Amino acid sequence: MSENTLVSLTVALDVMGGDHGPLITLPAAKLAVETLPNLHLVLCGDEAIIQSHLNTLQLSNHPQLSIQHASETISMDEKPAIALRCKKDSSMRAALNLVRDDQAQACVSAGNTGALLAIAHFVLKMIPGVERPALITHLPLSDGNSHVFMLDLGANVFCNSDTLFQFALMGSVMAEQVDGIKEPKVALLNMGEEDIKGSDHIKQTAALLTASPYINYAGFIEGNDIFSGKADVIVCDGFVGNVALKTCEGVAKMVMDKVKKIVNESPFTRFLGVLLNPTLKKILKRLNPDQYNGASLLGLRGIVVKSHGNANSTAFYNAILEAVKEVERQVPEKIKNKVELGLIKRS
Amino acid sequence: MSENTLVSLTVALDVMGGDHGPLITLPAAKLAVETLPNLHLVLCGDEAIIQSHLNTLQLSNHPQLSIQHASETISMDEKPAIALRCKKDSSMRAALNLVRDDQAQACVSAGNTGALLAIAHFVLKMIPGVERPALITHLPLSDGNSHVFMLDLGANVFCNSDTLFQFALMGSVMAEQVDGIKEPKVALLNMGEEDIKGSDHIKQTAALLTASPYINYAGFIEGNDIFSGKADVIVCDGFVGNVALKTCEGVAKMVMDKVKKIVNESPFTRFLGVLLNPTLKKILKRLNPDQYNGASLLGLRGIVVKSHGNANSTAFYNAILEAVKEVERQVPEKIKNKVELGLIKRS
Repeated sequence: MSENTLVSLTVALDVMGGDHGPLITLPAAKLAVETLPNLHLVLCGDEAIIQSHLNTLQLSNHPQLSIQHASETISMDEKPAIALRCKKDSSMRAALNLVRDDQAQACVSAGNTGALLAIAHFVLKMIPGVERPALITHLPLSDGNSHVFMLDLGANVFCNSDTLFQFALMGSVMAEQVDGIKEPKVALLNMGEEDIKGSDHIKQTAALLTASPYINYAGFIEGNDIFSGKADVIVCDGFVGNVALKTCEGVAKMVMDKVKKIVNESPFTRFLGVLLNPTLKKILKRLNPDQYNGASLLGLRGIVVKSHGNANSTAFYNAILEAVKEVERQVPEKIKNKVELGLIKRS
Repeated sequence: MSENTLVSLTVALDVMGGDHGPLITLPAAKLAVETLPNLHLVLCGDEAIIQSHLNTLQLSNHPQLSIQHASETISMDEKPAIALRCKKDSSMRAALNLVRDDQAQACVSAGNTGALLAIAHFVLKMIPGVERPALITHLPLSDGNSHVFMLDLGANVFCNSDTLFQFALMGSVMAEQVDGIKEPKVALLNMGEEDIKGSDHIKQTAALLTASPYINYAGFIEGNDIFSGKADVIVCDGFVGNVALKTCEGVAKMVMDKVKKIVNESPFTRFLGVLLNPTLKKILKRLNPDQYNGASLLGLRGIVVKSHGNANSTAFYNAILEAVKEVERQVPEKIKNKVELGLIKRS
């Protein structure tokens, strides 16, 4: 860890969220406080349930853990508007309230994505100049050493050119701060690389990006180049981003299924499979990034990391580490500065 | 081949199109006439060049081949509108004219996609009731035995709900006729499976599909389920379809690159790689379907198959076979009937 981690920091966890709730969030919390001695976690949810799990995990009265009681849990299929209006004492909202009140520097949840977006938007509010929150994650590149950040991944169905421009500014900050890339190359996902390709709002966004001195604009990029390293940040609307990301997951699963089938054909190929499967699995697992390390909500006045609903404790632990990294790198402050600069220059 | 192939059939080839022109289209033509004794191919392009290649291939005066001279070639980066207006004696247009004039039952080209769409639309016209041509291809399913058809793959940036409904009718016909699937399951690609997800035009399309007795509507599908077999036909607009398809290609390439890297780490893994690479390559190659078997333009009054610009002779040969299959199964006639039924029921 960097030297910054020596400064104490606090992260609020939505313990009850996700498909498995405390069964995965609390073992992840245990691992996190064991790994990071300067980390304090506030466990938000039903106190009795949390206490009982902490006893089992031999974590009662752990100095790095405290509990924030919340009587309600938002289910995975609950409508976001209902969750926002009717569940004011939910574990998710309690965690977000702590961030709003400066009692925690970040929140991590594996709960209902729509509800998290709606409540985070309502509770934390947007950074001035950013109209909509965006979901961002990073994907592995072919070279095996670096990443590409992609946003939006489904927070917004359709985005106009102003929103996409703001996403480009925010994505640049993530690549700079989280991955340490200087002047990250920002590309727009499109159905062709030529200037004449794509819809009008994509072309308008391209014009905004070309004109901005705060963006290192690399032009249009196609789906087959997502992993090639042509871009450090890929910007698209939530519908397209969501389809692209989930398609990666689908391809990864299909390749694994087919390899398994081939491998089971004879004792000899079974032997080969035993040797090669773990490596393949590792590659393909990383193509399912929200399961692997969570996705961040950008544009809010606070750090919110969304772990996959079906996350296991390792994935939830990775999401906590992601939140810690964003706290250390002061991502919301850096976004605020970049957006101010980017928008002043335009107006 | 089915017994239908005993009936003589004629396919027009744009010999000059694609990155490699006659160097790949003519070896593919040779393979096709050798495989299908009832197939006649009209080779469209510069007669002198074609003749010289035929001599090299020992195909001069072959009874199954004839030449249609065309003095112009459309380059891969030519603007579609310019190609349509200014290159009236192109090899591509000559091939499409033959289909229009009933001198060929299908056309195959590896040329400029935009130009092919524009010229095919102008020369062949649309089937009544279909507003826009769509690009369709089939992808392999996880089970290894069957396919899923996906459209549109980039002929149209944005499609309204009427157009998507027509695409669903056309995709159903392809799955029925080409793959022999009775009442194929048609799904709409979306960013979630729940009814509330997605844009308004996606929801409107869902309502049209639910109401139609001519569509076996299977609901929304997400990117991770493209290969799962939940759908036989997946409908989306050209922007999203293009990104999804090219993302598959990108993932396939990345997995191969990473496997190669791992395999080269030691002599032992190199040995494993030699054994497993061909199988992996086979799986991943099929994720690049337009390179593998071409994509078809649907909705026109004639059969047009687009082979990849960078196709090799095997891929171009596969595209010819695809065209032959669509002729045998009378795809445009079946689409005409289905669209008539589907639209009458709606009005």
